[in-house]
Amino acid sequence: MRATLMYGAGDVRVEHVPDSVITLPTDALVRITASCICGSDLWPYGSMKPEDGPARMGHEFIGIVEDIGPEVTTLNRGDLVVAPFAISDNTCQFCREGLHTSCTNPQAGFWPDDGGQAEAVRVPLADGTLVKLPVEADSALMPSLLTLSDVSGTGYHAAVSGGVNPRTRVTVIGDGAVGLLAVLAAKRLGAEQTILMGRHQVRTDLGREFGATDVVSARGEEGIEAVRELTGGHGTHVVLEAVGTMPAYQQALGVVRPGGVISRVGVPQYEDAPIGFGSLFRHNIRLTGGPAPVRAYIEELMPDILDGTIEPGKVFDATTGLDGVPAGYQDMADRKSLKVLIKP
Amino acid sequence: MRATLMYGAGDVRVEHVPDSVITLPTDALVRITASCICGSDLWPYGSMKPEDGPARMGHEFIGIVEDIGPEVTTLNRGDLVVAPFAISDNTCQFCREGLHTSCTNPQAGFWPDDGGQAEAVRVPLADGTLVKLPVEADSALMPSLLTLSDVSGTGYHAAVSGGVNPRTRVTVIGDGAVGLLAVLAAKRLGAEQTILMGRHQVRTDLGREFGATDVVSARGEEGIEAVRELTGGHGTHVVLEAVGTMPAYQQALGVVRPGGVISRVGVPQYEDAPIGFGSLFRHNIRLTGGPAPVRAYIEELMPDILDGTIEPGKVFDATTGLDGVPAGYQDMADRKSLKVLIKP
Repeated sequence: MRATLMYGAGDVRVEHVPDSVITLPTDALVRITASCICGSDLWPYGSMKPEDGPARMGHEFIGIVEDIGPEVTTLNRGDLVVAPFAISDNTCQFCREGLHTSCTNPQAGFWPDDGGQAEAVRVPLADGTLVKLPVEADSALMPSLLTLSDVSGTGYHAAVSGGVNPRTRVTVIGDGAVGLLAVLAAKRLGAEQTILMGRHQVRTDLGREFGATDVVSARGEEGIEAVRELTGGHGTHVVLEAVGTMPAYQQALGVVRPGGVISRVGVPQYEDAPIGFGSLFRHNIRLTGGPAPVRAYIEELMPDILDGTIEPGKVFDATTGLDGVPAGYQDMADRKSLKVLIKP
Repeated sequence: MRATLMYGAGDVRVEHVPDSVITLPTDALVRITASCICGSDLWPYGSMKPEDGPARMGHEFIGIVEDIGPEVTTLNRGDLVVAPFAISDNTCQFCREGLHTSCTNPQAGFWPDDGGQAEAVRVPLADGTLVKLPVEADSALMPSLLTLSDVSGTGYHAAVSGGVNPRTRVTVIGDGAVGLLAVLAAKRLGAEQTILMGRHQVRTDLGREFGATDVVSARGEEGIEAVRELTGGHGTHVVLEAVGTMPAYQQALGVVRPGGVISRVGVPQYEDAPIGFGSLFRHNIRLTGGPAPVRAYIEELMPDILDGTIEPGKVFDATTGLDGVPAGYQDMADRKSLKVLIKP
């Protein structure tokens, strides 16, 4: 079969690899019908050292169950399923609390050897990880349903963790897919005002369609000043930080209201950052967020997609076969594409 | 009148200074009947440069209103009052939300020119800042009521901000007055388990009396291991960090459960600290806390003191007149005293 491998920064190849097979009794083998490239894939695409590769890529996909291990009880061959970006058993104490990304099962975690930018994939803990979709594989809803594997749930996690409600003003930092879906989530939760900070008008226009009440294209001090002007001087109760860089974190510190919360879902590209008296502490600013337990949100968000209330699939602005995946990476890195859907 | 001045690290003096007087129409002049030395006073006592001094000291006190400015409407001469450690108007949008430490009034903030370790003090925004006490100045409840000015409210703020409830296990880091009163607060909020990390048995014994179910005297990796053993391996849902040093923060990272919260009320002695993928982010650890809006908690906590339900004044293990203040600082720095009460 064919799969995507990253050999190092800027070096993505689609190659023939051994067919994925079931290796554990709780596995399923899934023939992929739709997958995509993630903004987080761009971090290694920008910096990965050749000695750390090659790595199989892709952690968002929909596919058809082709085979199941003997201990899989909830799935059958032919089921159409969506996979969250993290593997979990959906039964441990953390999964039961809705924190599937901290599942304690030894097989749980982020996608390991296999990847979703491929023709097929072995799915560990298939009963816990996969969620059946009540549509056919050629449904027009496929792009939106595919976002349930990561970006819809990640944007929603930002907003839920930040405590967005009708009494909160919200700033969203970042106009990538996650930032735009954080806007959609803030609208769903009833935010009084949602300010989207982003510089690419095609994207911020989609952000307005998703519910942004204001757009600030300036960054740094100028951007902070603009948000403060829009909020009576004090900033917003909630900041959804969907980038992960230090400048994005500093921007969040600049626009958050005293007593407010910065909710991070962009994977931090830093370890140490200011959290002392002069940043978080003085005005009781809270910090929350992390890898989204998207498995916990799929059942909640899916009905709105099925009935057309929300259309998160609009974040896909390009579609390719496997052959086009390397170019898709480059287009996303160059910001020519917002998010690339793959039909293997 | 006499007042306490800090001239530099290790150099505290009680000197004659000009009498405090009313300077603004919203001021009150308070004759101090009881005040104390704070754990946070020990930071400058350990490191203050002479060029930054001399500074008037003290931000926790009870006293009798001796005079009021023409715009003060809720207080009268002779009233016995307690002062929170921060000045606030109790009417701005942040005060109305209970975040008095972020009061927007230009006169609001931490104690400026005057201080509470003195015979008298000018209190700005007296209507907002001061709270009347329904007892006489010689009441036996005085030590406990004095804790309402800071340490009771600060310990309570840690627990409230951390979301302590009957379903949470709690670790308290630090056996100073704030840590011990964070234990008391966790008990008040019904914590399932409260583990106190502290090395001084006299203090941890008081912590047990306040409601600690377990005490861990080890620190660093050994202490973290002990807490994990007491909690089935995963640490506690809430960590109340009542010290403020980097080792205390690192200890908090070690004992907090995935999805849990670190609530800081010890003034951070660092600005940058780990908050990236390897510390907070990976397991959705939240960070909260800051300077406690103790003004918001006084009415809530006072009845329990008046009826004897709680006795937070037990944190005072020494009493002195103004002459003994310099020795009191040294005793607290040497950990001979937990907290020193001053009767000017």
